[in-house]
Amino acid sequence: MENLPSQTIWYLEYINSDLVQGAGVRRVIYDGQTPYQKVQVIETGPFGRSLILDGKTQSSESDEFAYHEGLVQPVMVAHPSPQRVFIAGGGEGATAREVLRHASVTSVVMVDLDQEVVELCKEHLPNHHKGSFDDPRLTLRHEDAIAYLRNTEERFDVIIIDVPDPLEGGPAYLLYTKEFYRLVATRLAPGGLIVTQSGPCGPINVTEVFTAIHKTMSETLSNVSPYRVYVPSFGTMWGFIAAGSPNAPHVGEMETGEIDTRIVSRLTSTLMYYDGVAHQGLFGLPKYIRSAINSETRVITDDNPLYAI
Amino acid sequence: MENLPSQTIWYLEYINSDLVQGAGVRRVIYDGQTPYQKVQVIETGPFGRSLILDGKTQSSESDEFAYHEGLVQPVMVAHPSPQRVFIAGGGEGATAREVLRHASVTSVVMVDLDQEVVELCKEHLPNHHKGSFDDPRLTLRHEDAIAYLRNTEERFDVIIIDVPDPLEGGPAYLLYTKEFYRLVATRLAPGGLIVTQSGPCGPINVTEVFTAIHKTMSETLSNVSPYRVYVPSFGTMWGFIAAGSPNAPHVGEMETGEIDTRIVSRLTSTLMYYDGVAHQGLFGLPKYIRSAINSETRVITDDNPLYAI
Amino acid sequence: MENLPSQTIWYLEYINSDLVQGAGVRRVIYDGQTPYQKVQVIETGPFGRSLILDGKTQSSESDEFAYHEGLVQPVMVAHPSPQRVFIAGGGEGATAREVLRHASVTSVVMVDLDQEVVELCKEHLPNHHKGSFDDPRLTLRHEDAIAYLRNTEERFDVIIIDVPDPLEGGPAYLLYTKEFYRLVATRLAPGGLIVTQSGPCGPINVTEVFTAIHKTMSETLSNVSPYRVYVPSFGTMWGFIAAGSPNAPHVGEMETGEIDTRIVSRLTSTLMYYDGVAHQGLFGLPKYIRSAINSETRVITDDNPLYAI
Amino acid sequence: MENLPSQTIWYLEYINSDLVQGAGVRRVIYDGQTPYQKVQVIETGPFGRSLILDGKTQSSESDEFAYHEGLVQPVMVAHPSPQRVFIAGGGEGATAREVLRHASVTSVVMVDLDQEVVELCKEHLPNHHKGSFDDPRLTLRHEDAIAYLRNTEERFDVIIIDVPDPLEGGPAYLLYTKEFYRLVATRLAPGGLIVTQSGPCGPINVTEVFTAIHKTMSETLSNVSPYRVYVPSFGTMWGFIAAGSPNAPHVGEMETGEIDTRIVSRLTSTLMYYDGVAHQGLFGLPKYIRSAINSETRVITDDNPLYAI
Repeated sequence: MENLPSQTIWYLEYINSDLVQGAGVRRVIYDGQTPYQKVQVIETGPFGRSLILDGKTQSSESDEFAYHEGLVQPVMVAHPSPQRVFIAGGGEGATAREVLRHASVTSVVMVDLDQEVVELCKEHLPNHHKGSFDDPRLTLRHEDAIAYLRNTEERFDVIIIDVPDPLEGGPAYLLYTKEFYRLVATRLAPGGLIVTQSGPCGPINVTEVFTAIHKTMSETLSNVSPYRVYVPSFGTMWGFIAAGSPNAPHVGEMETGEIDTRIVSRLTSTLMYYDGVAHQGLFGLPKYIRSAINSETRVITDDNPLYAI
Repeated sequence: MENLPSQTIWYLEYINSDLVQGAGVRRVIYDGQTPYQKVQVIETGPFGRSLILDGKTQSSESDEFAYHEGLVQPVMVAHPSPQRVFIAGGGEGATAREVLRHASVTSVVMVDLDQEVVELCKEHLPNHHKGSFDDPRLTLRHEDAIAYLRNTEERFDVIIIDVPDPLEGGPAYLLYTKEFYRLVATRLAPGGLIVTQSGPCGPINVTEVFTAIHKTMSETLSNVSPYRVYVPSFGTMWGFIAAGSPNAPHVGEMETGEIDTRIVSRLTSTLMYYDGVAHQGLFGLPKYIRSAINSETRVITDDNPLYAI
Repeated sequence: MENLPSQTIWYLEYINSDLVQGAGVRRVIYDGQTPYQKVQVIETGPFGRSLILDGKTQSSESDEFAYHEGLVQPVMVAHPSPQRVFIAGGGEGATAREVLRHASVTSVVMVDLDQEVVELCKEHLPNHHKGSFDDPRLTLRHEDAIAYLRNTEERFDVIIIDVPDPLEGGPAYLLYTKEFYRLVATRLAPGGLIVTQSGPCGPINVTEVFTAIHKTMSETLSNVSPYRVYVPSFGTMWGFIAAGSPNAPHVGEMETGEIDTRIVSRLTSTLMYYDGVAHQGLFGLPKYIRSAINSETRVITDDNPLYAI
Repeated sequence: MENLPSQTIWYLEYINSDLVQGAGVRRVIYDGQTPYQKVQVIETGPFGRSLILDGKTQSSESDEFAYHEGLVQPVMVAHPSPQRVFIAGGGEGATAREVLRHASVTSVVMVDLDQEVVELCKEHLPNHHKGSFDDPRLTLRHEDAIAYLRNTEERFDVIIIDVPDPLEGGPAYLLYTKEFYRLVATRLAPGGLIVTQSGPCGPINVTEVFTAIHKTMSETLSNVSPYRVYVPSFGTMWGFIAAGSPNAPHVGEMETGEIDTRIVSRLTSTLMYYDGVAHQGLFGLPKYIRSAINSETRVITDDNPLYAI
């Protein structure tokens, strides 16, 4: 036999119409459609079990620690004492897991529109949630996150936006607009922080949505701190943006030693990605990303949304 | 017509037998074989023109600035006054380009085994070399880099290893061994620095060769400083390792402000990736990479080489 | 190195959104756009040089003999003495080549809308046309085939429709309608024959357009004779349909010995695919294709066209 | 969103190292390894459920009727009264199903080495076997077919070889040798017939194994009759070769009307592919295949086997 690939079943994810990543499939665990989106749970050789929504990988066993620690820990560690936390999305339960590592946390409200996705994650992604759904501090609701925030009397120390990219026709594009960040600002407790996943962030796609989300957040929030983490199963570097209410700490400017001290004193379990040194790596953006941020003029609004590919 | 992809011609690069990246091809500029390796020069939609050796992308227009500034600038900036520089490989001329930005440099010896590859790069990758081959400070030789170093009387302030991964049967695997680093150590001028490209460096492949190269360099060289940069056209995060002779500066511990001061005073042109902030991002490794480095025990030798996939 | 494929550059042709064929690319000879369609001339390992229009292979060196002999020879051999022949499309020059093998032929009018495609074929596909463009019996025109037929006073012994599939937005879909076959009927000389390429013809796609073209031709023409040939570079079995004016011979019912006798006495060069035995193979359709033909009720009209995928 | 393919999970089958067919996967039903071979049962969009052994599709719901009727019916119809039938391989049960349509059949011995494959087919491919495993005329054994034939006292009217291609290291390559056909000849009853699946049979791969199997059978058996059928899920035209003991009927020369008469009088259910007209299509080989057969000189022996790609 000639030199043929040993894999026969492949998962292909299109980064854009000109760029694709393929991973050898070990198992197709679920492939279906909810009222809101197409859902797949598959296991691939390189990435383990993955949740895929509308053809885009949301997280994978092999590198979800990078994504979820990267998303959650900088704001949680930067806040002096995070007690009440709000999560929009986060269906895998891993964002809640990261929040719940903090002994200071007393309540987490997680609002994920799509109950079917959450149920599938509970059943098929145990290494993602690691029991976080059973933590009594967690309240899980299946409704529209914007409506929830609009109607709630609660104020939060940390708000985490962990929803899919703003895909046209998808369930999440209104969670990336100026109107949404204004709403968030009113729902943060004094000194509260927000972080949002913010789309791809490499040389060829940093301006797809990342820089525009940054510009939009800067219209309303303080100390906007862009950063990024490498998530191989997404096929690209991934962006996050943290920001705060007027008197909140500046997430991007925390010092290495202080971070390590806080982690030791506050967390009840060990991290794999994040500490003081890693923080410098996350926030030490290359010049070209900072230039792209500085050149950006687009502000995303409900009437003029921006869609990822 | 149904929803079919607009691209019909694709370049596929296997990261491993289970993971592949595909890019839409605009033009196949060259596809041939030299005495040493298979060579392709293609232009893709996402990445522009790329040099590919033995099926592995060496650099692409869209992100070679990240690779080449990342490889070259930390050691060049860390050295107090780099004058004599040695480059092994670097056929695209972009590594030499980065070195020659430094006004202090008086001579660069570039030894690339494969004259055909260098000629192809001169002709087809003008945006890579940007005229560096015409700089009178550059001496270009086509011979075995190990033999050259063994026979030379010269001593170098900076030695840069920019050769393909240690592929089995490929031309480069002996440039990653303990014996080679011993030879390098004797060819560094006092306070001299070395940097080598060191293979993939993501969660799923950091131990493929990166950690073992780190371990091997640590046997012989001082202040070994691992770091990494995201190069999308490689389909993965990419590792570098800098190190020095006994009294050399510690590349990984340079301070932000000092880097920016040196760049302004020494460089004759503007960088796109590297400065003081970006340096912290390059060297701020996540915990899992530092753990993998600390756990590594393999030392690569001529008799017991290690091959990348 | 693990078991990786030796090919890195692939041409992918989607048979439909769920089925794709990939061939290793040796050379991309041309990749551009005319006023009418996207054109590619590439060379692949399995198929040699291929002409591709709008992402669909039109013919390839390795198997164009099957396509072009299959399209042309049954009607040419069935006609008692073909002298005047009309070709719609046929840009590669290979359809004309097959016609011009017949000593009886005195004039061939070939009308291909897209002059750029014909020029590209002349230059890059010498093994397709084999000099047919230089035959003094050939008149080549670049205009709309329907307009030409409408305006001409000429009557033809054989009319051959060798245009792309009826793609939505493509240049050819009006050459598969009832109105077109009515026009053809008036332009055939007494006893004249027509043949048209008729799209894919395998178990999964025989009803895509093949059976509807058959139904449509049957409304107007006599002795409609469907048949098919295997063309690997199309990734599927391919259909043709021959038919005639009221007193024309029945192409599908020719006898083996008579075919062989006519070939010997009339042709000036040797065929690779077609003879009396091969004829029985072409027209000996499996039951499922004949059933699909019998069940078809769609008639294609200018106002109600049918599009291939 | 740009024009991205709607399929995300693909099954890729390499026809050779330069040619691949991909089908959108609906479900991966089984993916494992038996003592003899790698087994997959998947469901794809274009082809329905498929059995795949060692990365090669053995048969698919959408077109197995073409393969199995094509393999079985010509010899069964050509034999004047087939009663005792031997099947080597045929794990899907569909070859037995075709044999058991004949009212004359009194016993079928099916010897398939790999019990696990047969059990998987029983469970997961009901549309293939359609209950044939429950027919009391069928005896199913799991042992080496060559050993069985060597040791049996039985003589068979029809012997059908339905095993995988002769892959290097695979379980079947000794069922394509001169020694095997000699053994078969001694196990045929007077006037008995054999047919074997014989590998790909298109312009680019007819000489891979098809012509050599023909040459090898011709050394020992009479009235060797090559033919082929189009099986889309194999990504290529597929070859079969029938032959007989000295006084057996000539399968390839049966007449259309006689075939139809026999089918009506003998079969207990309706065929989808095969009848008198279809028979002419199967055996009406194009010139290039007959030329390739005539030029072939390779004889396959146990000591000098031939391997498919």
